Amino acid sequence: MNTLEEICRQIKPVDAHWLTAARLRHLSLTKPPGSLGHLEEIGVRIAAIAETETPSIQKKRIYVAAADHGVTDEGVSAYPREVTHQMVVNFLRGGAAINVLARHCGIEIEVVDAGVDHDFPDSPGLVSRKIIRGTHNMTEGAAMSLNHALQSISTGIDLAGIAKQDGIRLVGIGEMGIGNTTAASAITASLTGAEIDVVTGRGTGVDDEMLGRKRRAIRTALKVNQPSGRDPIDILRKVGGLEIGVLMGIALGCAAARIGVVADGFISTAAAALAVAACADTRDYLFIAHLSAEPGHRALLEFIGGRPILDLGMRLGEGTGAALAMHLIEASSRILSEMATFQEAGVTNKEV
Amino acid sequence: MNTLEEICRQIKPVDAHWLTAARLRHLSLTKPPGSLGHLEEIGVRIAAIAETETPSIQKKRIYVAAADHGVTDEGVSAYPREVTHQMVVNFLRGGAAINVLARHCGIEIEVVDAGVDHDFPDSPGLVSRKIIRGTHNMTEGAAMSLNHALQSISTGIDLAGIAKQDGIRLVGIGEMGIGNTTAASAITASLTGAEIDVVTGRGTGVDDEMLGRKRRAIRTALKVNQPSGRDPIDILRKVGGLEIGVLMGIALGCAAARIGVVADGFISTAAAALAVAACADTRDYLFIAHLSAEPGHRALLEFIGGRPILDLGMRLGEGTGAALAMHLIEASSRILSEMATFQEAGVTNKEV
Repeated sequence: MNTLEEICRQIKPVDAHWLTAARLRHLSLTKPPGSLGHLEEIGVRIAAIAETETPSIQKKRIYVAAADHGVTDEGVSAYPREVTHQMVVNFLRGGAAINVLARHCGIEIEVVDAGVDHDFPDSPGLVSRKIIRGTHNMTEGAAMSLNHALQSISTGIDLAGIAKQDGIRLVGIGEMGIGNTTAASAITASLTGAEIDVVTGRGTGVDDEMLGRKRRAIRTALKVNQPSGRDPIDILRKVGGLEIGVLMGIALGCAAARIGVVADGFISTAAAALAVAACADTRDYLFIAHLSAEPGHRALLEFIGGRPILDLGMRLGEGTGAALAMHLIEASSRILSEMATFQEAGVTNKEV
Repeated sequence: MNTLEEICRQIKPVDAHWLTAARLRHLSLTKPPGSLGHLEEIGVRIAAIAETETPSIQKKRIYVAAADHGVTDEGVSAYPREVTHQMVVNFLRGGAAINVLARHCGIEIEVVDAGVDHDFPDSPGLVSRKIIRGTHNMTEGAAMSLNHALQSISTGIDLAGIAKQDGIRLVGIGEMGIGNTTAASAITASLTGAEIDVVTGRGTGVDDEMLGRKRRAIRTALKVNQPSGRDPIDILRKVGGLEIGVLMGIALGCAAARIGVVADGFISTAAAALAVAACADTRDYLFIAHLSAEPGHRALLEFIGGRPILDLGMRLGEGTGAALAMHLIEASSRILSEMATFQEAGVTNKEV
């Protein structure tokens, strides 16, 4: 029995009883019914995940998983490969966008070395789980072996378990990996059947020539590897990434541990979509932080059936959108926990 | 010389030098150019308002202005008139949605009694600026006298000045007033020329019959009063509200004091639109928190030319959307102030 089957057996849909209880509580609070819109539905789901109508999210963590990608040999990114490890150092020093936004939103960050082609010294905030020093070039064969793919997923499941033990109530998933929009587009095309050209965008900002190379690389990779659209592990192994496998595992592990998990942008959502493909009930625990400017994101959202919380035209990754959305998710839970009811406040309700 | 002319003379567009400086700083920070999307443009405007490329918002305040509306005699709301004062008490006790969200976002609240038909005891957090005990029924004549309209605006200008003295860097405007979506729809129709039926929605949740009464009341009010579409004070006086006048004044006063001001939803945006109609340069200081579920909001946004930060289907008012958006605006300023540059972080930039 592999770990994936085991974890999938542990993932149960949220209990409808708590959805109803939270909706009823919303109706008792001093505001017109439904007047907080999507924020109310987010709160209802958080309540059902936590199995209480007055949920409290306090400890929040974002895992930023980093890894290198062999497909960068094809010239698919505007930045050189070494930027992956340089940005990891930037994360550890606190100078990146995700550091600023996580501080602003009261969220811990842990940076996971899932497969960066660089040796980092031990450092607070760095979780060393290097599987291999980057994937192989997917245009020439599978990005990684089946064992490494499974190892990346079980690493993520493990990290979700640690988060649970640490009392974390909401986990965000973000990433860093030069070349990883290429992997995410290849995953999206494989998983959803969408056209490569439609789901492949400019990533960090490639020009027309590079965009052409990126699309050709994906076309070649899918032709060479023939990933099975119905097998998320096959897709991950052949055209995915080590950080993507870890994030997929975190999503599954959070669902099994009954913790909400917030996918950031395009790449994190690709990981979450693989988790949903492996186990559909993961959906109940999954929140989509924002609508990425990357064109492939919409295809993934249709596949998952999720509604993004924010739409700010962001396309940075790192978990930046997740940080902002997690603050809104926490707001939705505080509404349920802290607002006065009509009765408590002595406010005349509509029905009276 | 009236106060409005005086304040309008003090409102200057933001200096393009600072817009450019902030855009250049964005390019130097460790992220692909433009990858934070709309958040970058928000930060650029905050920088220009503060006249620094590393702005710091710390003290934030929301003014929740409350008043009663004579038009409630026409049966236009799902809630009775006394809910206005009951909700003010709820605000002062900390049990309303705006209290929860302001706490969550680190924002002070001040509740302004601009014209509630109730006597409140002195209370911390209550700013007593009652002009009259609610407007007159606009279907029978002007909602208020010219003097009272001007008094409401100068009250708002005064409050913006106090915020400035208190070191507030970002002001949100929210409201409470049973019947005030009727006033806001009448303002919207007058100001933008849009069809009454298109800009009149269900407010707190009226049924079809009440919606019909609401539309008829607005039609009658516009016919009886004939507000001049080019004169925001005439519109405010004839079909507006006391809290709306105060919020209009706050928007003008913030622009004059060079403080960013965040309009919440439909009613607050109606107030902000009146401010923009009185002085177009107010636009430079104005942020639109979210796209309200009220249909009239879109017409106002077209009139102002603003892009809402959030789109969560909210329609509660009180400043609830402003609170959430102010946290995002602060995030945009922290990005400019706290992120490392490529040079500082030793990260290879694209151009290299």
